[in-house]
Amino acid sequence: MSDLQSTAPTSVSDPRIIPSTNPSAITLPVRAGDLADALGGTLVGNPDVMLDHPGAIDSGTSSTITFIRSSTYAKQWADSRCGAALVSDDVELDHTDDSRAIIIVENADLAFVTILQAADPGRTRPAPGIHPSAVIHPDALVAPSAAIGPNCVVGPGAKVADHCVLMPNCVIGADTALGAGTVLEPGVVIEDRCTVGARCLIASNSVIGADGFGFVPPKGDRRAIKVPQIGNVVIGDDVEFGACVTVDRAKLGSTTIGDRVKIDNQVHVGHNSIIGEDSIICGRSTLGGSVTIGAGALIGGAVVLNDHSTVGPNAKIAGGTIVLERVPENETYAGIPALPARQALSNHGALREIGSFVRSTERRLKKLEKDRES
Amino acid sequence: MSDLQSTAPTSVSDPRIIPSTNPSAITLPVRAGDLADALGGTLVGNPDVMLDHPGAIDSGTSSTITFIRSSTYAKQWADSRCGAALVSDDVELDHTDDSRAIIIVENADLAFVTILQAADPGRTRPAPGIHPSAVIHPDALVAPSAAIGPNCVVGPGAKVADHCVLMPNCVIGADTALGAGTVLEPGVVIEDRCTVGARCLIASNSVIGADGFGFVPPKGDRRAIKVPQIGNVVIGDDVEFGACVTVDRAKLGSTTIGDRVKIDNQVHVGHNSIIGEDSIICGRSTLGGSVTIGAGALIGGAVVLNDHSTVGPNAKIAGGTIVLERVPENETYAGIPALPARQALSNHGALREIGSFVRSTERRLKKLEKDRES
Amino acid sequence: MSDLQSTAPTSVSDPRIIPSTNPSAITLPVRAGDLADALGGTLVGNPDVMLDHPGAIDSGTSSTITFIRSSTYAKQWADSRCGAALVSDDVELDHTDDSRAIIIVENADLAFVTILQAADPGRTRPAPGIHPSAVIHPDALVAPSAAIGPNCVVGPGAKVADHCVLMPNCVIGADTALGAGTVLEPGVVIEDRCTVGARCLIASNSVIGADGFGFVPPKGDRRAIKVPQIGNVVIGDDVEFGACVTVDRAKLGSTTIGDRVKIDNQVHVGHNSIIGEDSIICGRSTLGGSVTIGAGALIGGAVVLNDHSTVGPNAKIAGGTIVLERVPENETYAGIPALPARQALSNHGALREIGSFVRSTERRLKKLEKDRES
Repeated sequence: MSDLQSTAPTSVSDPRIIPSTNPSAITLPVRAGDLADALGGTLVGNPDVMLDHPGAIDSGTSSTITFIRSSTYAKQWADSRCGAALVSDDVELDHTDDSRAIIIVENADLAFVTILQAADPGRTRPAPGIHPSAVIHPDALVAPSAAIGPNCVVGPGAKVADHCVLMPNCVIGADTALGAGTVLEPGVVIEDRCTVGARCLIASNSVIGADGFGFVPPKGDRRAIKVPQIGNVVIGDDVEFGACVTVDRAKLGSTTIGDRVKIDNQVHVGHNSIIGEDSIICGRSTLGGSVTIGAGALIGGAVVLNDHSTVGPNAKIAGGTIVLERVPENETYAGIPALPARQALSNHGALREIGSFVRSTERRLKKLEKDRES
Repeated sequence: MSDLQSTAPTSVSDPRIIPSTNPSAITLPVRAGDLADALGGTLVGNPDVMLDHPGAIDSGTSSTITFIRSSTYAKQWADSRCGAALVSDDVELDHTDDSRAIIIVENADLAFVTILQAADPGRTRPAPGIHPSAVIHPDALVAPSAAIGPNCVVGPGAKVADHCVLMPNCVIGADTALGAGTVLEPGVVIEDRCTVGARCLIASNSVIGADGFGFVPPKGDRRAIKVPQIGNVVIGDDVEFGACVTVDRAKLGSTTIGDRVKIDNQVHVGHNSIIGEDSIICGRSTLGGSVTIGAGALIGGAVVLNDHSTVGPNAKIAGGTIVLERVPENETYAGIPALPARQALSNHGALREIGSFVRSTERRLKKLEKDRES
Repeated sequence: MSDLQSTAPTSVSDPRIIPSTNPSAITLPVRAGDLADALGGTLVGNPDVMLDHPGAIDSGTSSTITFIRSSTYAKQWADSRCGAALVSDDVELDHTDDSRAIIIVENADLAFVTILQAADPGRTRPAPGIHPSAVIHPDALVAPSAAIGPNCVVGPGAKVADHCVLMPNCVIGADTALGAGTVLEPGVVIEDRCTVGARCLIASNSVIGADGFGFVPPKGDRRAIKVPQIGNVVIGDDVEFGACVTVDRAKLGSTTIGDRVKIDNQVHVGHNSIIGEDSIICGRSTLGGSVTIGAGALIGGAVVLNDHSTVGPNAKIAGGTIVLERVPENETYAGIPALPARQALSNHGALREIGSFVRSTERRLKKLEKDRES
């Protein structure tokens, strides 16, 4: 790219780098012994290994710190070139290598977050203030510490609280409020009269508050009639949405996303659905209208929840499941349609061979019936 | 948010509030007796209840008007605090409460639309005219009554008819035409040479007219070769699309969406598909290439229609169905793969217990076979 | 639209029309005989037919050139009004019409690409240079031959190589690099520290490099904790993405898309997935996290690939399949969950009638058991 040119800026504001997570309890590089102390873990092996970056167990160097959460990873340790590993205390691992170190902790994934936080280069965000290309309605209220990036549009009556970040090309409708510290990545649209809590992260091109899909079905010569969707969307604090998520506004009242809910890319949430706090929904799941999910539910990828279906608190749903009616509290469901996981698993086993089972059963029944007649 | 600041506008145009639906036949507040007259319904109970807002049956007050479309709702009426309810005439409901009112109508959902229209606060839209930040090609034609919001881009030869509204950040390609009164919500992209009819509503971040997915598959040393997609997308009048819908342009001719078609969020329509007028497609359904859907079809959520499959006029397809080849006119299909709903239901019943059925059948057959031998 | 007005441009740059594919080996109109020569095919019938546009077999005129790739199309030839057809040499077709022509070629689809290229009106792209409304960081490097459309935002350290085209409203994050000739359609977002190769086409509103979906699950009173996603996305050369595709950045290392991969609309690719070169993924498929796909795989629409699942080189997966663990090299899989296609097909046949099979088996077993007892 030898003929690339640098271009004079058209923006007066300098972008800033901000970490995407909280500050880490450690800094890199770190001595293995010091890391064990910081994490409250038990070191086995060489406490003097110097570690300067996190890495995968199969691709590291002598200064790489990796993690071992299961026996699958444990088997790779002997051949790994990583200098040290965080090991969950329920994983069996013989470590007899004096040049490297393992650090035994309660939860290797959790401890590894500390390493990732320390290594996180952060993301570039617009600096506080309003970019000159942004279009802010005079009746909008924007905190001085908020950062409104290029080409954003903020409608009348909207409120953008302290330390919010709107990356480029976001659109905030009239009378919509964002809580303190919420970050919208590029191209996010939040339509009129919605509320987003504090410290949320909404990834690019997600759409909050489009009309719910409501029509009185056609009958005879009468065409379908649109049902006005006069409600809104209310999102709690510390919520995270992936890219291209859509959450529709309610016909009446609010489509509601509880505190700390995490929703992955391309999930669709129909109007009047209610998602309880701390629930986690993986990629490409579909919530129809008026779905109710209790607190702490864990929903896999590509799940379909039928209109008006319910999922109880702390329920778990396997990826690809189709829920027609109800998943009870604390239960684990799977299958099409959804059944208790044990039953679904039993069915799955039978279904793998169902073609040959049907043919052999037919044959055996015919033989038995023929023998009986003779 | 005490330190929020209002910011001088960078836009000269004032946004306006427009209703998202037609004007209502009534205004709120309304006396229950007057409402019954306006709707042509039959009032039972107190005609003097004053109603000022629509609401759900389980969350209202004495001035709330709600709706009862089924026995599920009817059972909640005794305990509801709503002042009045619209009741479908095929729902059984004893109303003996002198302080409240019910209004019996043919179709409670339809009558309730009138209430919702009256209560609809509308959406904020850009005012007519072209926002100074929009980029309009000199060869584009824009009606003076159209509203082109901030940061929109309109290409050469494009036509934007009377009373169209382009909300912020929309992009209209070259030679693309929008019919009168069509509204594009923020971030919609309609690429070159497409046509959208009158009075359509296309929700945020939808993409119309990206290339169809066509490649001559690789063979031996030859790589996949892109098949140019030289057709377009043609959308009729009064069509509504949800957010993040994608409709691809045709290889030849037009991907065609008929008049009054309603498509929910995140639906994908492959190239050269044809959707007949008045069809309704729910959230997250996938139409492959060259799918043909007749008029008046009703397609549930998360349905998959295979390339070249056909759906007859007025057919219905249950959510989660996978159609490999064909759903006939007027039929209702369900299942994976799609079957007539009665058959699919019978299969579903059997499949719920298929694991235990297979095991018990094996056991019974073995016993019969053993007995026979002895 | 009689009162449409043309509007003075706010842009100094004129858009240009560029073909979306390579130049064709022919120009239209073309004489059938000359076309046969150019394609290396064998002409049967009238070599003097003049052909000026490609078209479908059921909608052409005497100057239309169409294609016949299968017996389905061959049956329509007698009634077609097209002037000529390209016919794959493995399709049986009697052509005895002296007024029209067929041209026999090895692969009609491949030969037809030449016609489509010649007929392609191309797309309007921004002219080279930076639109005045674009916001380019002073530390970004943009090649003089690149075209940066209206309202694009390019972050610090980003590199945009020769002949790249950014259509309106695209956002390029810090330190992200685009290879020569890559085209981003409107609204594409590529976040910090990602790499896109040369000659890629990424369709509208796709999002590359949002955070992977990683949380340490909640336990007791501890809430879910975000796992920082400090990796990136690396995309090879000659890759094509449809609209609203999302590819998440890796937790560590890179989510990797190989050279010449083609991905259709609304596909979701989870963090740390690796897609081998020349693979093709059809619309609405879902790749969980850490999925590995070998080179040359062909994956149908609406397929679900579970977290950590693997697909071998040159494997094929039918539309709607759910892969839990593994599809081996060169195999064809189908079904829910995925099985070898032959077995899945056998199962599918059995499943169509499983309800009646279960009922009749129960009846026959009972009868046999009763007879034995008597």
